[in-house]
Amino acid sequence: MEKENKRSKRSVGDVSPAVIKRLPRYFRYLRELIRNGRLRISSGELSELMNVTASQIRQDLNCFGGFGQQGYGYNVNYLYAKICEILGVGEGFNAVVIGAGNLGKALVRSPMFEKRGVNILGLFDVDPAVIGRTFGDAKVYDMSELETFCENHTVDVAVLTLPKSCVPEISERLVALNIPGIWNFTGSEIDASATGAVVENVHIGDSLMTLCYELRLKELSEEREGTDA
Amino acid sequence: MEKENKRSKRSVGDVSPAVIKRLPRYFRYLRELIRNGRLRISSGELSELMNVTASQIRQDLNCFGGFGQQGYGYNVNYLYAKICEILGVGEGFNAVVIGAGNLGKALVRSPMFEKRGVNILGLFDVDPAVIGRTFGDAKVYDMSELETFCENHTVDVAVLTLPKSCVPEISERLVALNIPGIWNFTGSEIDASATGAVVENVHIGDSLMTLCYELRLKELSEEREGTDA
Repeated sequence: MEKENKRSKRSVGDVSPAVIKRLPRYFRYLRELIRNGRLRISSGELSELMNVTASQIRQDLNCFGGFGQQGYGYNVNYLYAKICEILGVGEGFNAVVIGAGNLGKALVRSPMFEKRGVNILGLFDVDPAVIGRTFGDAKVYDMSELETFCENHTVDVAVLTLPKSCVPEISERLVALNIPGIWNFTGSEIDASATGAVVENVHIGDSLMTLCYELRLKELSEEREGTDA
Repeated sequence: MEKENKRSKRSVGDVSPAVIKRLPRYFRYLRELIRNGRLRISSGELSELMNVTASQIRQDLNCFGGFGQQGYGYNVNYLYAKICEILGVGEGFNAVVIGAGNLGKALVRSPMFEKRGVNILGLFDVDPAVIGRTFGDAKVYDMSELETFCENHTVDVAVLTLPKSCVPEISERLVALNIPGIWNFTGSEIDASATGAVVENVHIGDSLMTLCYELRLKELSEEREGTDA
């Protein structure tokens, strides 16, 4: 029993980072399949749905144990459960959202956390107009209460949706509180090595720039076609 | 003159996709340097700041013309302008935000669009409680006015912040309107090839899953250390 436990834990670190990066996408598609009552899917069908090659799918999914059975396809529920296990969904991580502005409110009201098994314990803000109010199921606390709150609750993740200018101060407080995970939307990159925490810096604007770049390429190629014609 | 124009246009498509993906990050750091009044920076300094190797930086930046001068460093403003040109910042793209919920409001109130030279022409929603109101500088229009609005304005990008369930209907309307760019926050992937548009699907939740995965790895390695001790 002990041994088996250890093996399953070790396997978490054995999946390559490239595959790990692709797993959330599988998670989303499998979730949708479950919602639609699907029990099995072939790699060919999944390939068409997700717009990746069937061999890529087999390669991705076989590396953490062969779920697929020849001529039978993947068991959707089992695959979903396995991916959740590897990604840490349902580990019951607890999060606080620091900054109850539009983005903070949008995040706590979305089903995103619940779907991934992350509990929102509360929001924190300095604005008296929002302190004490409830958004989604989460209450807004005064920023000055953060330390006491963290003493009384296990906080795994701090979601930062406060202005860029507040990052130096909040980083220092988070380091002192020893919060192990930071999900950072401030636009100011936080260096994981400096905080000792796991940090995910989200830069939504980078995706807008990629879109603008692709748009410009498209325009140029259409212009060129126009000139050639 | 004609010739030079053509060359500069052609160069846009010559940068490798891997480099293009990294350029928004350079954009952010260079912007910050300009804000702080910096005129020049060496690849070594930029390397330390951005936490990538100096040789990576030289490789990335030299591929669209050597900006760096030996022993002199990069001209920050020139580099910034060049990256903006390549990424299409300042092309004056016009966007509409479809869905004036929390996320839509958060996006239009953030400086993200302005920083990237994208103009928000307006928001669209079906909720009478928000139609006619203004968020940031953008007015909320009735969804039924979308077609008329697009006849009277050049709309380059539709930002989708409406519920997943609305995606099939809105996709059809966008295809009919021939809007060339879609920035999709709905969580439902839109297939670019089906719409003929450039599509960026944003999945904020994927980043939360990566964070949870890393957190779990960290916990396991700490547990293991505890057991070894």
